[in-house]
Parts: sequence; structure tokens; C-alpha cells
Amino acid sequence: MGDSLGRLFRITTWGESHGGGVGVVIDGCPSGLDLSEEDLQYELDRRRPGQSKITTQRKESDKAIILSGVFEGRTTGTAISVMVTNEDARPNAYDHLKDLYRPSHADYTYEKKFGIRDWKGGGRSSARETIARVTAGAVAKKLLKYWEDIQTIAWVEQIHEIKSKIEKNSISPNMIEKSAVRCPDKKASDAMIKHILEVRKAGDSVGGIIRAIVRNVPAGLGEPVFDKLTADLSKALMSLPATRGIEFGLGFDSVKMKGSEHNDAFVIENGHIKTSTNHSGGIQGGISNGDDIDLRVSFKPTATINFEQETVSRSGEAVKISAKGRHDPCVLPRAVPMVEAMINLVLVDHYLRNHKSRI
Amino acid sequence: MGDSLGRLFRITTWGESHGGGVGVVIDGCPSGLDLSEEDLQYELDRRRPGQSKITTQRKESDKAIILSGVFEGRTTGTAISVMVTNEDARPNAYDHLKDLYRPSHADYTYEKKFGIRDWKGGGRSSARETIARVTAGAVAKKLLKYWEDIQTIAWVEQIHEIKSKIEKNSISPNMIEKSAVRCPDKKASDAMIKHILEVRKAGDSVGGIIRAIVRNVPAGLGEPVFDKLTADLSKALMSLPATRGIEFGLGFDSVKMKGSEHNDAFVIENGHIKTSTNHSGGIQGGISNGDDIDLRVSFKPTATINFEQETVSRSGEAVKISAKGRHDPCVLPRAVPMVEAMINLVLVDHYLRNHKSRI
Amino acid sequence: MGDSLGRLFRITTWGESHGGGVGVVIDGCPSGLDLSEEDLQYELDRRRPGQSKITTQRKESDKAIILSGVFEGRTTGTAISVMVTNEDARPNAYDHLKDLYRPSHADYTYEKKFGIRDWKGGGRSSARETIARVTAGAVAKKLLKYWEDIQTIAWVEQIHEIKSKIEKNSISPNMIEKSAVRCPDKKASDAMIKHILEVRKAGDSVGGIIRAIVRNVPAGLGEPVFDKLTADLSKALMSLPATRGIEFGLGFDSVKMKGSEHNDAFVIENGHIKTSTNHSGGIQGGISNGDDIDLRVSFKPTATINFEQETVSRSGEAVKISAKGRHDPCVLPRAVPMVEAMINLVLVDHYLRNHKSRI
Amino acid sequence: MGDSLGRLFRITTWGESHGGGVGVVIDGCPSGLDLSEEDLQYELDRRRPGQSKITTQRKESDKAIILSGVFEGRTTGTAISVMVTNEDARPNAYDHLKDLYRPSHADYTYEKKFGIRDWKGGGRSSARETIARVTAGAVAKKLLKYWEDIQTIAWVEQIHEIKSKIEKNSISPNMIEKSAVRCPDKKASDAMIKHILEVRKAGDSVGGIIRAIVRNVPAGLGEPVFDKLTADLSKALMSLPATRGIEFGLGFDSVKMKGSEHNDAFVIENGHIKTSTNHSGGIQGGISNGDDIDLRVSFKPTATINFEQETVSRSGEAVKISAKGRHDPCVLPRAVPMVEAMINLVLVDHYLRNHKSRI
Repeated sequence: MGDSLGRLFRITTWGESHGGGVGVVIDGCPSGLDLSEEDLQYELDRRRPGQSKITTQRKESDKAIILSGVFEGRTTGTAISVMVTNEDARPNAYDHLKDLYRPSHADYTYEKKFGIRDWKGGGRSSARETIARVTAGAVAKKLLKYWEDIQTIAWVEQIHEIKSKIEKNSISPNMIEKSAVRCPDKKASDAMIKHILEVRKAGDSVGGIIRAIVRNVPAGLGEPVFDKLTADLSKALMSLPATRGIEFGLGFDSVKMKGSEHNDAFVIENGHIKTSTNHSGGIQGGISNGDDIDLRVSFKPTATINFEQETVSRSGEAVKISAKGRHDPCVLPRAVPMVEAMINLVLVDHYLRNHKSRI
Repeated sequence: MGDSLGRLFRITTWGESHGGGVGVVIDGCPSGLDLSEEDLQYELDRRRPGQSKITTQRKESDKAIILSGVFEGRTTGTAISVMVTNEDARPNAYDHLKDLYRPSHADYTYEKKFGIRDWKGGGRSSARETIARVTAGAVAKKLLKYWEDIQTIAWVEQIHEIKSKIEKNSISPNMIEKSAVRCPDKKASDAMIKHILEVRKAGDSVGGIIRAIVRNVPAGLGEPVFDKLTADLSKALMSLPATRGIEFGLGFDSVKMKGSEHNDAFVIENGHIKTSTNHSGGIQGGISNGDDIDLRVSFKPTATINFEQETVSRSGEAVKISAKGRHDPCVLPRAVPMVEAMINLVLVDHYLRNHKSRI
Repeated sequence: MGDSLGRLFRITTWGESHGGGVGVVIDGCPSGLDLSEEDLQYELDRRRPGQSKITTQRKESDKAIILSGVFEGRTTGTAISVMVTNEDARPNAYDHLKDLYRPSHADYTYEKKFGIRDWKGGGRSSARETIARVTAGAVAKKLLKYWEDIQTIAWVEQIHEIKSKIEKNSISPNMIEKSAVRCPDKKASDAMIKHILEVRKAGDSVGGIIRAIVRNVPAGLGEPVFDKLTADLSKALMSLPATRGIEFGLGFDSVKMKGSEHNDAFVIENGHIKTSTNHSGGIQGGISNGDDIDLRVSFKPTATINFEQETVSRSGEAVKISAKGRHDPCVLPRAVPMVEAMINLVLVDHYLRNHKSRI
Repeated sequence: MGDSLGRLFRITTWGESHGGGVGVVIDGCPSGLDLSEEDLQYELDRRRPGQSKITTQRKESDKAIILSGVFEGRTTGTAISVMVTNEDARPNAYDHLKDLYRPSHADYTYEKKFGIRDWKGGGRSSARETIARVTAGAVAKKLLKYWEDIQTIAWVEQIHEIKSKIEKNSISPNMIEKSAVRCPDKKASDAMIKHILEVRKAGDSVGGIIRAIVRNVPAGLGEPVFDKLTADLSKALMSLPATRGIEFGLGFDSVKMKGSEHNDAFVIENGHIKTSTNHSGGIQGGISNGDDIDLRVSFKPTATINFEQETVSRSGEAVKISAKGRHDPCVLPRAVPMVEAMINLVLVDHYLRNHKSRI
């Protein structure tokens, strides 16, 4: 189990890459929000394969259909069900994988756990599962905007060894979307695109780092002890496929500082309490302090490559596996809307939870 | 709220540094486990302040009292309640902080959230809260050992800029406990201790990195989609005070590799399926593959320092704050049992969840 | 919110009577169970309107479509999504209700809660919502049969003032299904059918009592304190539309006895411990004792009647409402599979929870 | 497991009748509420054994100690821990029960479930467990009063075959507390007291019915589908020891009516929408309609009697059990504050959940 996330804004997802489709049920969306399929489609299109020359060339139109929970254009306050049907079914595309464990995929672990696995596309470990997350994230995004104009933006900060360099406060969503690789630093973006195309040609793959900031966060989101905002964001983001690490504010680099350097001093600015630095990434003691949330997620290189690799079969024989056909040399550009979605889902949940924190 | 963690092995913690004490209720511990206060005390002593010259000199004996759930030396299967009473109450030690926000503490965020804060020690953001975690972790440790001899060991890998270098498979709990800083690399350990003492003298603080591995993990722990083992471990560990990042296997360094280098090839070893490398840290698709779990957590330098710092008062005036008296220059040695506890709590929960994954 | 039920076998339902359909996501079904759409359809057909002359004549074929979670005929251990599309949409059938509150329906309370209501069929309070429950219950039924041949059977014990009289141990599913009103007492069944037809002719409605027993329940299901089997069954059954009460064993009649009469004495029967009576309905201290579970649920008469009734409009004017067309004079026969479904869902959840109650 | 209740106002209880005591952790209480031990003590004293001549003569002072979550007299918004220590330990009082299963107690079912049981007082099935519920209920009561002056009152409506007759709107808490049996109908109260004393003399026990109403409930509490207010109240109340049934409004008697008689017509009264009758007990479609909530809970006669009874031993031999000493001939008077507590706990939870039901 484990197909649900959230306490008050609770999503439950379902679906594999073969079969009827993938979908999400959103439980706990307040009533009265304007919501249309177009709202969802914008984010799905950002996640969609085949959207640019550097992603996988798999063709999926991924149209969102709202099945319940919206009446006369507004949410009713009850379960919102959204479905995306599967296309691009190539029934025999996976036949050669039936009895193999693909290296660094979930084939082996699913089979050890369940005694059975859906070898036609990886079952729930399929990248199509993230459609449901992005769909639900689009609803969360609308709520955050409606409530307090809270804005989450994510971008590709690093691909393989190519790092971007750009002042985070200058970044707009538009700058990110203009880049095929979703890196707002033009120079780095060009280098990344060139590199990804070369990597694809070689049948290989690369990973990278996505950075995200959240603007206009009210102070007070997050809970003491276990449901700290850092903890819940970590869980949500580390549940995305291919993630290998997360850090907040200075993160691992905070280790290089002493406390006297790292502490964020409080100052008065235009009559408001602020911190002079934001080393902590906008969260202290697990609760937002009103400053921008700032985090980074690392993604390993995609496991699917067009190389002959060593592996073993279900019966325990050493065999070779040769991926054939399409592969996604770098998931980072498409992972950007996923990262935003997960952050927005957590924020909506905590926004709702925070509402009656005082009598 | 947010004082509970886990689905089937569920802990609920309570308590502040002033008041009656701190404690934990463990719901879901199977019946029949031998359990005594001594079992809990061993881990509490590893967490205790004042255990060595490099930790805070605060004196707390921290005796665990089992209030319920154990009958004639064995768990009954019902709620286990454990309490540790508070000592070392210095009633006036916090008076000067009443109207100030300590930089990089939770003072400001708690007050923004709740409209009130417990200024006598930080309320639930107090380090004493971790007593409850370590206590519950001791029970989890016993279960894991009983079931399949699953062993979690954590150690200090880096303090400030001092890095240790030691082959992880050679490390034993004993090697870690022999070092006051809980670093099994003797040379690095000596350097770290020396550095921490200097830092304390200067009234400053340092952070670092704790690494943990888990041995004898059965394949199949963790769930698809949201409750991946990586996700649940991230939440649990990032809920510890002062954590700033987490990574699994190669983590952020996986970004430097291509897929063809990073993939863990399956091989047959003595008739069993293994991976030739463990870049993924023992978890693939969110589910354990039977290899060692391998992760790192970074801790920022402690916020409490013996420096005069700038801050603001509750009424919004710029003021100076001068910490006085005892401070903990480096929490890492005491955080080692906390990291182990959080890992063990998550593993027990997933072990129980996994039990009926097939008919 | 509140569209989910269960801790380890967790169902999430969605859908209204207009719109795309209704459905359920089942999270936590163990892998390896044979499952087909036919398995679901049998129970859906028992719930379906129009199945006999005494139910509503609404025509709905209610075909179950499995969208995910089943691979090559067996469950994969991941989310099972089932959908039933809506038919019989009579777009204008509800126009006259747009600005009225139907007496004893959820119109008024939904609008007070959400500020909006889906007046085309009652939104989530529509009887179609129970399709999702019955679908999930069919999966639960298969698991219970597979594990320990646990068998839940429910029947109509009373309609309005007509009471049946039949020894519960003699009842078979077949005897129940042979009766259009699902009462295995032939004489009472005939009287009930006659009465329901008269009531329908008069445009009125009647309620009644459904009794259920569960055979072959292992001892040990249920938890101390809050998640007692009685408590969880009560919640599940009292969440069905139109329920007004529930009782276990002798229930309200136990009040007429003294302790010396009511206590179920333990005896040895063929070397096994049994109770000589089953006044407690198979559950003691909230935990099953191995005897048959025995309970009753009362349903009020359906709110929809073909009478002119007094009510008020949204703008607060006294108006008349005249239901037109089809109405269901008695939901009890169709509620029988719903009662069985809710019991089976709770039992599967507790069966899974019980599995590691001891080390 | 199952020691927690509630989603946003979540209580976790612990403790047995021997051992350190019993207690509760309240997670999710908003900050800023005035709260003292006296607030809790008033309700505990109403639950306390030995408070009148008709209850058990066990002597327990049951003093509530607040261990955390209250600072300078107000709740902090974090976990409130309250403990009541055990007294009246008669170490050998249970020795003769060590190897027996008491009829209609939880001895047998606990042992079947856990393979072990705490024979010194029944473990978690002990009536002392309800101390924790009543304590938490006292906090809930204060919140409900603070928010909207919501008032829950419960009373004994029937003992054995003696029924009271009193108009519910005329009843005040004072009228109830003046009666030793907590029945506000003076004549019935006298008869009940006389009967209970006779029953005690005979070593026997009796049960009865508690009725509860809630005044000033805002419309909109409760959720569609599974977390209906009726469903959650049923679970909470049916988790109390010795309960055998629950009904809302007309409950089982609604079966005797036709829809045309049972429906609650909407009318305008002083410009407000009301129902002319309250057959549904203030809840429609699972959501409060603003009218008084009205429910009844039945309690079986207490299992502990001073009679020689047949039972079996753990080794499967038929033996006689003779209760000795004190027993409680009727728990109903002391169950009144328990019923109120469970209702208040559910209402607070739903009040918090309802708060952001609309944008």
C-alpha cells in the first residue's frame, strides 16, 4: 500500500503504463474553487514526454478528464477524481523483459515483495505514475495562488557536471519555460541541451539537480516534532522516482560553516521582522518563517539506457539485456513540474492544517 | 499537531524541557518481546548530555520508567508508555530570553504559529524531545534484532571540514562507541575532538555529517509510490532537529555519473542474486533489495552559541542577545543514537506493513 | 473529506450520479489474488436498481471496469482502481429541485457545509456512491474466503412492522437470494413484498432491519481500546445512507437481562473452548472470540416519496415539493449487499492488522 | 494497536490498572486555551468509583497531573500529556484469576490475540482505561464551550427495566448531577437506585441505556461518505466498554414509520430555516443540520458478578469461578461522563476538520 499522501488535502493515485490509464482522487479540496480540465492540462503538458527534442520521443497526449467533484465549474468540496487514459500501448515492446531484472529498476524489488510483477512497463514504478501527482499538484497550485499568492518555482540547476549560475530572485516562470531543459541560465541551458543530445546519441543517460523556491509563504506552516515542513517536503520529494538526495537552504554546505556564520540574524526591515540571511531555507524548527523556502533535489541518471548490460534472469542465470528503441536521456526537464507539484501538495496540506492552530 | 510517526508501529511523543518530563507512547509493538528499562537506558545514555568532555555539560540522568504495556517482563501487545522526568531545572536560566527571538531557533516560528511560546527552553523544539525518539528506537532495535538480526549502525563521518575515511564494512558498533565523537576512524576522531574543544572555547559551534548503514535488511521493505523506504526514512530523519539534508547511496554525487556508470548490475554470487555495486544504497524503486541500506544526514552547526548576536525583540526592537553558560558545541556525537533510532522506527513499521503483502 | 476507510486495506471512493461515473481505489490488497470483473459484477448486480419489481425502476447496468492493479488475472499488490460509468442521465430530472431543500435529504446540510451543492442528484449523498463500496467489498469477500473461508451473510429481518422468524444457523445465501426482498423466511418474505408494492403505489416508503452474521471468524480480530471490532463495524455500517442504529448480539435487549443471565459461560466442546451462549455477538472486549459475529442495522424509511411535502427554498420561502416519477419504496433488499460489503471491508482490514500482533 | 482516536484532535491513551498509571496524550489542541488540572478533575470525579453508594466501593482518588503542553496556564498548541497514577493496588486480588477466563470479559480474546494477557486487572480492557478518555473529553468540552457554547449532556434513561420519562429540553446538567444514578427524572431515579442496591446485594449486575443530546451544534459538522458524524460518533461510543448498541434520533423505532411520517419537514421559524420535527437526531446525510444531536447507547449488564459461574481454565478444564469482594452492580452512572467525553472528542475533531471546508 502507500498510494495516498497528505492528511487534510489527501491524494490517492492509481494506474500503470498498460491498462486503463492513470488517475488520482483528491480528498479534502475546499469547495468553491474554479477548476477546469484546462487548469490541469497546462501542468500535464509540462510533464508530457515528447514535448521537446531532448526528452523521450514517446508520444502521449495525456488528456485530463475530470470525473467527479466539480459542479458547474467549481469544486464541490467532495472527492475530485481525474483520469488520464493510456495510449501508445506497444503490446510487445516489453516481451524481452519478461524474465529479466533491469539493472537499477524496480523489477527485482517488486518481485521480491509481491511475488509477481507487471513486466509490461514496470507497474507502479512506471514514470506514468507521476501524471497523477502533477494533476493533483495543479489543483494545489490554484489553491495556493487563491489564498495568498504563494508561488512555487523549480528549475534545473545542474545536469551532469554542467552547473548553472543565476540569482534566484531574478528568476521568473517564463524564463524557465523558455528553456527546453528548464534552466533559466541561458548559457548553461544551451550547454545542457547540447550535452543531453550527445548523451542520447550514445545511448546513455544523465541526472542532475533541481532547485525550487517558494515565494510568499506565510510564517507558521509546518508542525513541531515529526510533521516538520522539512520532513514532509522531504518525504514528498523523495517519493519521486530517481531522487537520491534533498537539502534545504545551505544543506550539506552548511557543514562547512560555524554557528556564528550560519545563524540567520533577525533584523527589522520596513517595520517587519526579517532575517538578514536565509541559510536555513525559510524553515526554522520545522516551521516556515515567512522567508522563501529554498531546496534542492538530486536525481540519479535514468536507469533505462541503450547499452547492453549484464543482469540476471528470474531463474538466476547471468544474461545480457539490450534496451531497444526509445529512452529518455535526462528526466530533469520533465521532473521540474513534478517537483513543483509535490511541494504544492505539501504546502496546501499544511496550510489547511495550520488553520486552527490557535483558538 | 504532528506528534505521531508510523502506521503500524506508531509512536506519539510529548514533553518539554521544563514541566513534568518527556515521554513516548508506543502503539503497535507486538506482544511477547522481552523488554526492560535497562534496554531503554543503554540508548538513552548514548544520547545523554554530559557523557563526555565534548558534549554539553548539562547534567541529566534521564532514567526511563516504563509505565505500561509490559507485564512480567514481556510486552503485552498494547500501548507501551515510557517517561523520563525532567531534572536540572534552572528556573531562571531563560529569563533573559523571554522577549527575544534567538537566531536560527524556533522561537520566532513557534510564536508566529501559535501566538504563544514556551520561552523556558524552547517547548517542543527542545533537544529533550529526542529522548522520546531514542527510547522508542530502543524497542524497535530489539524487534529488528529478534526478527532477522537487522542491524543499524551510524557514525560521525564529518565534523566541520574534517572528514573521516574508513571502509564501511569494517565498522563495528564497538569501534564507534570507543570514540568520544563517535567516529570510528581513529585519526579523524582525534582531530574532530580537538577541533570541537577549540570551537567550544571560542563559544562557537560546528555541524557535520552522520552516515548510517543497515545490515541484513530483507528485500521487500518499502512500498511503491508515496511510502517508499527512501521517502519514509527521509521524513523520519529530516524531522530530527538541525538536519539540513539527506542522501541515499551515492546521493548528490550520483549526478556526476552517467547511467551506464551508475546502474547497479545484477550478478549471481554463490547462487544468490546480488548487485555488483551498491550505488543506490540498497533501495530500488523505493523498496529494499537486500543489500545494505546506506545513507547520510547533514546537521547544521548548533544555533546556540556563546556569542553576542543581533536579533529583535517581540516588540520589534533591534537588541543584542548574549548566550550565557553552557552550550553544546557539536550535537553530532549525541545525534548518532537519534539517527539510528529514526531508521529503526521506520524499518519496524515497514517490516510490519510488509507482512501480508501477498496472499 | 472522509472518502477513505481502513488502515491496511484502504478504500477511497469518488463519484456522483451525474458526471463521469463512480469508482473506488483499493490500496493494500495483497498480491496474487485471482480477480476478474465478473467477481465484482456479481455483487454489483445484487445492488443494482431495477433488479426486481420491488426496487426502484431506474435502469442502470452498472458494469465494473478494472482500470489498474490486476495483471494477467491476479492482483499485483498495488492500487486497484475500478470504475462504473454513469448511465440513465436524465439531465432535467432534477431541475425543479435546484432551489429547494428536500426533507430528510442531505441537500440542506451539504449547502450549509460547502456553500454549494450538486443539486443534480445529491452529489456524494447519492445512492450511487454505494456502488464503490460494494465493488470493494467483493474483493474483500474473496480474500476472506481465500484465507479462512470466512463467510458474511446478511438478510432482511424486518420491513416496517413485518418481522421474520428464522433460525440463523439454518440460513444459506441461496435462501436469501431466492427472495426478492432478501428475507429467507418465506412467509415473511411474501408479506414484505406485498406490503412494499402497496407502499409504492401510495407513493410512500418503508425502512426495516438488516441482520448479519459472520461464520468462521478466527478469534483475535479487533484491537483493544478504540479500534474494537464493534467500534470499527459500527463506523463502517453507520456510514451507509439511511442507517439509524446498530446493535451487536442481544444489543438493546441485553438491557432487560441481569449479568448472571447475560454472561456467556465458557465450556469445553469436543476439546475446544466455546461459549454456551452467544449473547455478546461473537465479540468480547472488542475482539472476536471465534463465535459467529451477529449484528443488526436499522434503516429509516427512504426520504424520497411521491407525496407533496412542505419545505423551504434556498431563499427561505415556504414552498411545496412534489417528487415526481420513480422512487424506491424500500432500499432494504439492495442494502443487503452493502451491509455485507462494509462488514467484509472491516474484517479484511483487521485480519491484516492482526497478522503481526505477536513476535 | 488502536490506542489513538481522531484526525485533527487526536488522543492516544495508555495504561492498565496495575503499573504506573493511566494517561493520555492530546495532539492537536489549539494554543491559547486556559487549562488547569481542576478542569480535568471535575470530570474525573464524575467518573470515579466510590463517588456514591450505588457504585463500586473501590477507592481511587484519580488525580490528574498535566505533564506537558500547558505553559503559564494556557495550552501551547503542542502535545498535552496527562497522567493519573494508580492506587488501590491489591497485589493479590487477582491471583485466583490467573489461569481462568472470566465469562464475558476480554480475558479469553486478549489471550487468543496476543498469546499473553495481563491477568492482574484485565490490562487495557480495565475500566481504568476510560480515565484517559474522560480527561481528554474535559479539554474537548472546554473548546466546544469556548468556540460556540456547544453543550453535550448525557443521562441515564433506563436501568434494567426501569424507564425514565422526561422532556429532553427541560433537562439541565444540575438535574442530572443531583441524582446518584444520573437520571433527571426524580421518580425513576429513586426506583433505579433502589433496584441497583438490591441487585448488588444479590451479587448481580444490571445494564441500561444512556441518552445524550448536544445543544448549539452548528450546521455543517461531519463529512460525506465514511466520516459521517453518525459514523464517527458510533465508532467513538461503541469503543466504550460494555456498549452493545447505538441509535440516532428515532433509531430502531424509525422502522415503524413510513417515509411520509418520518421525514423532517423544513419550516421557517423567526426567519431561520428549521425542521418541524427532529426524527433524524440532528444529522442528515451524515452532517449536522443545526438541530440538537440526539442519540442513545445501550450498555449490557456488567460482566463481573458475585456469583459462582462456570468457566474453563487456560489448560482447558471446566472450573468454577467465584468473584469475591467488590463489584460494580451498574456502570451506567459512571458511564455518563464517558459518553459525554466521547461525543465531545468527536465534535472537536469535526469542528477543526470543518474549518476550511470552503475556500
